[in-house]
Amino acid sequence: MTKQGFPQAGNNLDPWYHHYAERAAGLRASEVRALFAVASRPEVVSLAGGMPFVSALPQDLVINAMDKVMLEQGAVALQYGSGQGIPLLREQILDVMALEGIRANADDVVVTTGSQHALELVSKLFLDPGDVVLSEGPSYVTAMVIFKSYQAEVEHVPMDEHGMIPEALREHIVRLRAAGKSIKLLYTIPSFHNPAGVTLSWERRVEILQIARENNILVLEDNPYGLLYFDQPAPDAMRSIEEDGVVYLGTFSKTLAPGFRVGWALAPHAIREKLVLANEAAVLSPSSFTQLVISEYLSTADWKGQINTFRGVYQERKNAMLGALEEFLPELTWTNPNGGFYVWVTLPERLDSKAMLPRAVKELVAYTPGTAFFADGDGRQNMRLSFCYPTPDSIRLGVRRLATVIRGELDLVDTFAGTDLLGAVDDKRRFSAPPPNIS
Amino acid sequence: MTKQGFPQAGNNLDPWYHHYAERAAGLRASEVRALFAVASRPEVVSLAGGMPFVSALPQDLVINAMDKVMLEQGAVALQYGSGQGIPLLREQILDVMALEGIRANADDVVVTTGSQHALELVSKLFLDPGDVVLSEGPSYVTAMVIFKSYQAEVEHVPMDEHGMIPEALREHIVRLRAAGKSIKLLYTIPSFHNPAGVTLSWERRVEILQIARENNILVLEDNPYGLLYFDQPAPDAMRSIEEDGVVYLGTFSKTLAPGFRVGWALAPHAIREKLVLANEAAVLSPSSFTQLVISEYLSTADWKGQINTFRGVYQERKNAMLGALEEFLPELTWTNPNGGFYVWVTLPERLDSKAMLPRAVKELVAYTPGTAFFADGDGRQNMRLSFCYPTPDSIRLGVRRLATVIRGELDLVDTFAGTDLLGAVDDKRRFSAPPPNIS
Repeated sequence: MTKQGFPQAGNNLDPWYHHYAERAAGLRASEVRALFAVASRPEVVSLAGGMPFVSALPQDLVINAMDKVMLEQGAVALQYGSGQGIPLLREQILDVMALEGIRANADDVVVTTGSQHALELVSKLFLDPGDVVLSEGPSYVTAMVIFKSYQAEVEHVPMDEHGMIPEALREHIVRLRAAGKSIKLLYTIPSFHNPAGVTLSWERRVEILQIARENNILVLEDNPYGLLYFDQPAPDAMRSIEEDGVVYLGTFSKTLAPGFRVGWALAPHAIREKLVLANEAAVLSPSSFTQLVISEYLSTADWKGQINTFRGVYQERKNAMLGALEEFLPELTWTNPNGGFYVWVTLPERLDSKAMLPRAVKELVAYTPGTAFFADGDGRQNMRLSFCYPTPDSIRLGVRRLATVIRGELDLVDTFAGTDLLGAVDDKRRFSAPPPNIS
Repeated sequence: MTKQGFPQAGNNLDPWYHHYAERAAGLRASEVRALFAVASRPEVVSLAGGMPFVSALPQDLVINAMDKVMLEQGAVALQYGSGQGIPLLREQILDVMALEGIRANADDVVVTTGSQHALELVSKLFLDPGDVVLSEGPSYVTAMVIFKSYQAEVEHVPMDEHGMIPEALREHIVRLRAAGKSIKLLYTIPSFHNPAGVTLSWERRVEILQIARENNILVLEDNPYGLLYFDQPAPDAMRSIEEDGVVYLGTFSKTLAPGFRVGWALAPHAIREKLVLANEAAVLSPSSFTQLVISEYLSTADWKGQINTFRGVYQERKNAMLGALEEFLPELTWTNPNGGFYVWVTLPERLDSKAMLPRAVKELVAYTPGTAFFADGDGRQNMRLSFCYPTPDSIRLGVRRLATVIRGELDLVDTFAGTDLLGAVDDKRRFSAPPPNIS
C-alpha cells in the first residue's frame, strides 16, 4: 500500500526528492564522516578523526559528580531547564574563559549542545542565501558544512605559520565587495588551528579585528583547543580585545569530554537574546543533566589539573608524531603545533592525498585528505594527521605505514611520469592558496 | 574602544541589527516562554507549563543506570558517537514504538536532542520561504516557532472532539493550492493533543493519511504523549498505517525524563539519510552519555511499569482538575482528555484570556492564553490548563483562584457592558476556527 503511495513525485530512491528545501542540497556527507567508518576497524591506525583521549579522565571524577547531582538535585537534573543554560554553569564558564583573558558577564553566555550547535545557531541567525563567510584556508570541515547548509558561500583567506594573513584578508574583502557580495561572518580558529595546527599571532589578532571592525564584519571566534597548549599558551582570545564585534565559541568537549555535548557561545548582548530564542526553538533547553554534572565537576574536581594532564598526553603524542615523521618521512614538510590535536602535512607536488587514501587504508593507516578542509577543492597536496587519540606507539606505527604508502606512490608516479596513466591533475586547484607548511 | 566600534551599522541597542538573516525575524519570544518566569515563583500555582512530574521516577533507577554505564562503557559514554544515535538504543526505540503499532527498522531511526530537535531538522530540510505547513488549530507553540523561523506559513485546520476534521483539511488544501501555495508538511499531534487534549479517531487517521497521499504532502506525526493514556490507549500511530509518507517523532521526555534531551525521528529511508547529515551538521552527534543511560535503563528497569506509574499520576491530576472545574467554574466548557497533560478551556464569549492573565497572576494562578497556540491571533476565548506538574491539591487551589479571577472579570464586563471602556475586541479573531470544546 505505502510503496505505491507517491508514484507521481520524486524518484525511485526517494519519493520526496522534489520536496526538499533548497538549502538541503548543501547537506552532503563530508569526507571525514566516511572515514569514521573506516577508522573504527581495530586493525587500522587512524590518524584521521578528532576524538579526544577521554580515557585520560578519571572515571571516579565523573561518577562522583553524577551521583551527587542525582542525590542533591535530581528533580532539576531530570527536568527541562532554561534555554540559556544553568546560571551557575554560566558563571563557571566565565572562570574557564578568564584563563584566556576574557572578561564577560554570565548573562551573555548561552549554553549549547556542544559548540557545534552554537555554530549552527549563529549561522541560522545571520546567513541568507548568497552571503559570504570568510574563513581560513584550510578550515574546520563541519563549520563549512553548516555555512553551506544555509546557502552561504565560504571564501578562504590564506594562512601562513602565524595564522590568517591580514593583507590577504583585506584583499579578499575589497574583491568580494567589488563583486557585490554581502560578507556576514569571519570564521576563525585562532589557536591551534584545525586542521592547520598554527596559531594566530597577537599582532594579527589585533589587526584582523581592526579590519573586521572597519568593514562591519562579525567575527566568529571558535576556540575548542585554546587551553590545550604545550610549551606556552596561545595569545589571549580575540574576544579579550573586542566585545561588540565577536561571537566567541567554547566547549567542554576537549577539556573534559565530548559525550556530554556541552559547549557555549559568548555573544554581544542583543545577539545573545536571539541566540537564546534560536536555542529554545531548536532544543527547548540544553540537557539539564549534563550541565549539572559538568557544573558539579567544576565545583569539586581539580579541573585545571585535569587540563594539565590532557596537555601532557597530547604533547607526548605530538612529539611521537613529529619524531616519526622526521624518521620515516624526512622529505615531507609539516606544521609544528604548539597545542591542539593536528599536524598539517604537505606532500611532494606530484602526489594526491585524496587519491592515495584507499591505498593507505589497505596498508591499515587512515588520515584525512586536505581536500576535506577546503570549500573549493584545494588541498590535494595536503593531509591532516591527528595525534589526539592513538597512543604514541600507534602513532609511530601509523606514520611508518604511511611512509610505505607514500614511497609506493612516488615510485608509481616516477615510473609513469610523462604518461597520462595517472589521470588528469588540476594544477590550479592543487597550488592556489597553499596552506601553511613549516617543519 | 569596542563601544564605538560599529557606529555606522545597526542601532543603539544592537549594532548588528541590519546583519541578521531574514529568517531571524521569525524568532520571537513565545507567550509560554514569558510565563515560565512567572510560574517559577513558588507562591504561584502554575497551570501554565508542560513540565512532566519527574519526581515520580525513582532516582535509584537513574543512578544505577548511570553508574553501570560509566563503569562498563565509560570511554564510549564520554566520547563522540554516531550522528544517527547508538545502535542498541535505536533497537530499543523500536520496542517503544511497537506499543503503538509501529513496525520499523532501527536503520530508519535517528536519535535527536529531544524530539524538538527532530522538528527543527525536518523543518530545515523541507521548508523554503513561503512554504505552507498545515497544522491543527490550536497547535504546539514551539513547532510553530520553528516553522516560522524557516519563513514558512502556518495554516490551521479546525478540530473537533475527534481531532482534525478531514473535510476541513480538504477544503484548506484546495484553497491554498488555488492560491498557488506550496504545501510541504502536515504537522499533527494525533494523540492527547497539545493544547487541545483531544485524540484523532482511527477512521480520521486513515482518511487524513489518504488525503495527504493524494495531495503529496508529507505528514509529520508528533507523538510525545501517546503512551500516557488513562482509561484506554489511543488508536495506533499514523505511522503504523503509512510508511513512506510519515515522519514520526518520539521522545523519552514524557515517559522517562526531559533532562536527558533524548528523542527520535523515524523517517522514510531517503529522508533519514538527510536527517543524519543535518543532525551531524547541527550537533555532530547526540550525547553518547545520555543515550547510554537511557539504553541501560530500558535494558534493566521495568520501564513499562514506570510508564504505568506516570499514567496513574497524571490521571489522578486530570481528575482533580476536571473535578475542580465542575465545582468552581461549572459555567465554562472544557475538553476531557483521555491522556497527556492538558485541558483546553473555553471562556464565556465576552472574556479575553490574554487580557485576563495579569490579573490571574496577581491572584497567584497562571495559565497559558489560547492565543499562544494559534499562528493568526485566534484563541482569545480559550486557555490551556496543564495538570502534569502540580499536585492534585495545588490544582484544586489553582482552579479556585482562577474562578475568582473569572468571576471578577465577568462582573467587570457586565458592569461596563455597552461602553467602550473595555477596549476594542476583534470579533473576527475571537470566533473564527473555534477550537474543540467538550465538557
